[in-house]
Amino acid sequence: VAEAAPSFVHLPDLAAGGDEIVLSGDEAHYVSRVVRARAGERLHATDGAGLTATLEVLAAGAETRVRVLARERHERAARLEIWCGVPEGDRADWLVEKLGELGVAALVPVDCARASWGRSVRHERWERLAIAAMRQSRSPWKLELAAARPLGDSLPALAPGGLRRLADPLGGAPDPDAWTSADGGTVVAVGPSSGFDASELKRLSEYGFTPVRLAQARLRTETAALAVGSLWAAACRPGPTRA
Amino acid sequence: VAEAAPSFVHLPDLAAGGDEIVLSGDEAHYVSRVVRARAGERLHATDGAGLTATLEVLAAGAETRVRVLARERHERAARLEIWCGVPEGDRADWLVEKLGELGVAALVPVDCARASWGRSVRHERWERLAIAAMRQSRSPWKLELAAARPLGDSLPALAPGGLRRLADPLGGAPDPDAWTSADGGTVVAVGPSSGFDASELKRLSEYGFTPVRLAQARLRTETAALAVGSLWAAACRPGPTRA
Repeated sequence: VAEAAPSFVHLPDLAAGGDEIVLSGDEAHYVSRVVRARAGERLHATDGAGLTATLEVLAAGAETRVRVLARERHERAARLEIWCGVPEGDRADWLVEKLGELGVAALVPVDCARASWGRSVRHERWERLAIAAMRQSRSPWKLELAAARPLGDSLPALAPGGLRRLADPLGGAPDPDAWTSADGGTVVAVGPSSGFDASELKRLSEYGFTPVRLAQARLRTETAALAVGSLWAAACRPGPTRA
Repeated sequence: VAEAAPSFVHLPDLAAGGDEIVLSGDEAHYVSRVVRARAGERLHATDGAGLTATLEVLAAGAETRVRVLARERHERAARLEIWCGVPEGDRADWLVEKLGELGVAALVPVDCARASWGRSVRHERWERLAIAAMRQSRSPWKLELAAARPLGDSLPALAPGGLRRLADPLGGAPDPDAWTSADGGTVVAVGPSSGFDASELKRLSEYGFTPVRLAQARLRTETAALAVGSLWAAACRPGPTRA
């Protein structure tokens, strides 16, 4: 059986769908026009939430229809959530792309005393970038993009356990192994370009966020978030791929 | 004495210049228009090669003139050079910005069997981005931007000693402490989006480049280079700042 050109289709409804699925919108376009798949060829797909599948193309063109040949559930070995203040300019776009590639679980835009996200949140554009990054890295997970919310609301909602870190040029050198935890995920807070204020730093500390220094120099918001993603990705070990 | 607004002036001739320097071009504009410094105020400056200085503004406007009050020589605690294949699109721009912020010593564009830099090298634009990153991070060093050169020419010219690593999704998990070396600097090779070919991988191996995996997923060229910069920056310890 021929494989269609390297491809990785995003099917959010893969878990719910039956054995035949009619594709629509971006994904129909991707399969018929970008991948140029033909009836009889195989494709790979994911729902972006840990479920992957092998598909057989039944029709590609006016209607694009596939049959699910096999589904496979993947478990995350580790989970990193980045709570991020607003960066300057349009730098959030590539932050989304890069965190997606690195396998970060979620980007949570946090509104801070000194800076709010406001119109810097571009959800539709970010979704497209996150899907493209997932395809590029052939990951079963799409970066989750939360709605912007105040830092103060996010703290009491934290799940217990896991690691909590604060990117801080005045913090200690990071222990390279201390980015993942068997006991829950990792949450790292990165301030906006103007930084967290004293009251926010105090609350983060009360909630167990310990300051770590990422580099000798002060980093921009998006650079700090990307450095965190890189350190975490390097510390992750492969997890189980079947369940 | 008043400090001018947070500022960090790039004076490439700081080492050669006498005690009074007349600024020109971008730096004169930066001091008089961006920082809006006035006569009598203090500024900080660097030559981008480890020499910093405290300056007194003598005149700002039609002519911008400063007096050097004190010079200070900084030694690099560690040096990272990234040999990078060409990334896709215009992604090299932000690679320059981010490697500059992280304190990477040099970006060396390498032409590979499967992809050459060609017109993707934008030296003037990159210089501006590297200077902006240096100012942002208040670093005494500007990212060095080498001319593009064939990988094959670069290998025999390598200085002896130090660490040599190859970013490779099939490599081993990186030892987090193995990014800096007391015995010379670190050189990391990152392939173009199409990858190094078999003959290049063989030569890199002969020259002691050991493959390390940066993340579970395959990363884009520029993401891999940035992950390397982040891992190295986190592993660096502060060095001496006076000599």
